[in-house]
Amino acid sequence: MTIRLSGLRRGIAGAAFLLAASIPAFAADAPLPSWNATPTRDAIIAYVTRITTPGSPQFVDPGARLAVFDNDGTLWSEQPLYVQLFYVIDRVKELAPLHPEWQTQEPFASVLKGDIKGALSGGYDALMALSAATQSGMTTTAYIDGVENWIATAKNPVKDRRFLDMTYQPMLELLAYLRANEFKVFIVSGGGMDFMRAFTEPAYGVEPENVVGSTGALKFQIVDGDPVIMKEPAVTFVDDGPGKPVGIETHIGRKPIFAFGNSDGDIQMLQYTCVDPSVTFCALVHHTDGVREFAYDRNSSMGRLDKGLDAAAANGWTLVDMAKDWSVVYPPAK
Amino acid sequence: MTIRLSGLRRGIAGAAFLLAASIPAFAADAPLPSWNATPTRDAIIAYVTRITTPGSPQFVDPGARLAVFDNDGTLWSEQPLYVQLFYVIDRVKELAPLHPEWQTQEPFASVLKGDIKGALSGGYDALMALSAATQSGMTTTAYIDGVENWIATAKNPVKDRRFLDMTYQPMLELLAYLRANEFKVFIVSGGGMDFMRAFTEPAYGVEPENVVGSTGALKFQIVDGDPVIMKEPAVTFVDDGPGKPVGIETHIGRKPIFAFGNSDGDIQMLQYTCVDPSVTFCALVHHTDGVREFAYDRNSSMGRLDKGLDAAAANGWTLVDMAKDWSVVYPPAK
Repeated sequence: MTIRLSGLRRGIAGAAFLLAASIPAFAADAPLPSWNATPTRDAIIAYVTRITTPGSPQFVDPGARLAVFDNDGTLWSEQPLYVQLFYVIDRVKELAPLHPEWQTQEPFASVLKGDIKGALSGGYDALMALSAATQSGMTTTAYIDGVENWIATAKNPVKDRRFLDMTYQPMLELLAYLRANEFKVFIVSGGGMDFMRAFTEPAYGVEPENVVGSTGALKFQIVDGDPVIMKEPAVTFVDDGPGKPVGIETHIGRKPIFAFGNSDGDIQMLQYTCVDPSVTFCALVHHTDGVREFAYDRNSSMGRLDKGLDAAAANGWTLVDMAKDWSVVYPPAK
Repeated sequence: MTIRLSGLRRGIAGAAFLLAASIPAFAADAPLPSWNATPTRDAIIAYVTRITTPGSPQFVDPGARLAVFDNDGTLWSEQPLYVQLFYVIDRVKELAPLHPEWQTQEPFASVLKGDIKGALSGGYDALMALSAATQSGMTTTAYIDGVENWIATAKNPVKDRRFLDMTYQPMLELLAYLRANEFKVFIVSGGGMDFMRAFTEPAYGVEPENVVGSTGALKFQIVDGDPVIMKEPAVTFVDDGPGKPVGIETHIGRKPIFAFGNSDGDIQMLQYTCVDPSVTFCALVHHTDGVREFAYDRNSSMGRLDKGLDAAAANGWTLVDMAKDWSVVYPPAK
């Protein structure tokens, strides 16, 4: 019972095997050790010091210290594809024997031929068809168990490294630094909410209830005496762009004071958070490191950062230059 | 800045004036002082002791100690009408000068004549019309500020007592007892999520992000340079009956181990929570006290407890007999 509580799940160390990217500890007088001594690190530390120093005109009560983080491209790598897309692709391949019609039916046929670009050329409808076929029709428990099992070993094909080992060490340190300063940390991401909940606690120390994401319809049922929640095909909320402030209002119900993203889909979240720059902090990760990670911005199909670069300049948001600001990108692989 | 952070809201002691029903403190060796020494109190204490005693076969890790509470009729009174209905009625009266057509248009005309029963005879459609007219078309901030102002003084007409002074003292003690035992407490209620968030922190110590309720459509907009969330008329989620487990899965993402309700709308929440009775606890408040509170169950139009009484007996859920189990109902009025 100290390990897994029958009939319950999540947060009960049920995902203990995942404890890969362990949350870093650091000396209170030397935070952010994997950040170089640049103006970016200085800006983060100056902000946190300002709003946590009692008597400071910008002091913020601990109860109001809420921080929101995008996930893909902000806390872990999102190239060459979002991790959840790799999951969907692997599930299509796994389920293909049960669906002989997929051999000729798009977008499944392209996926099975390994032509991901062709599959995604069908746009939103193709994506929804792939998602519905692989991420609905089961209980939420079965779905999350499946993601948990998959992600324990799944690797990024370009880096030949587990996705779980491609979280960003400097961002893990930032999460720890904020928590040490009594911040409550939330993830607010366009990714599937239950997909993320399969790994955010072991990967980032973020409990399931502090994960905000895109959602599909759910239905309560009692199946053979067992009360379960079924995942249905309909998408009910897209937590991206203007959806992010709505997701924050719905799930958190008050404004954060600290927001971190990396793409155009994060612009509205930052606009919503950083109205008063004296007590708020907004930043974007700029993917400038083609050697250690991936270099992309205005023309990328995953995590495009185009209008966001201009918005950062116009609004005074901090831009993290990955190549210059981070001495380490990934934690040591386990 | 220690009181109200410009541009932010909630939880920043913004509702400090509400600190009416202060969260009770008690000696660790004498919990639940307003509960009589009945089998009900014994069952609660025996359960909490069992799952928090290290080495107990039913020990539950602190991270998995999640408790969910219905609000109306479970944490405060819901007779003769749900508090939110009183709010809607008062708003209709307040807005009536701007809507001369309401004098003849139902359900508004009945409300303005003081015939609430007549207004509600229009069923779901009438309720939605009243709600849309009074609870959409403004920013979430303006809406919550309005509820906050209203509830600071609004009174229950039967008891001539502020709604805020009609929380249940024994339940406040139970919340405190659970928190002292490292439970995380959530409200899961059919009430409007943002309506509840206007008072749950001062009234119960439950932060906005731990409140799950019914929701309407929201839209992000930038109005005169100010990023806001507008409340739209459409209802997007009803957190009642089979909606409660769905609300729990969506907002919390894992199963609670402790659930407390008082009506048929709570049955599915309790079914979902109490699969394994050795490590879970489920209870319903039975409104048996017509002198100190209100006496009602199988035939009430607010908070009907009919099937729930049978489900409690069939499933072994604890039934709180308000008249016998509670030595005090309301906290001392402020």
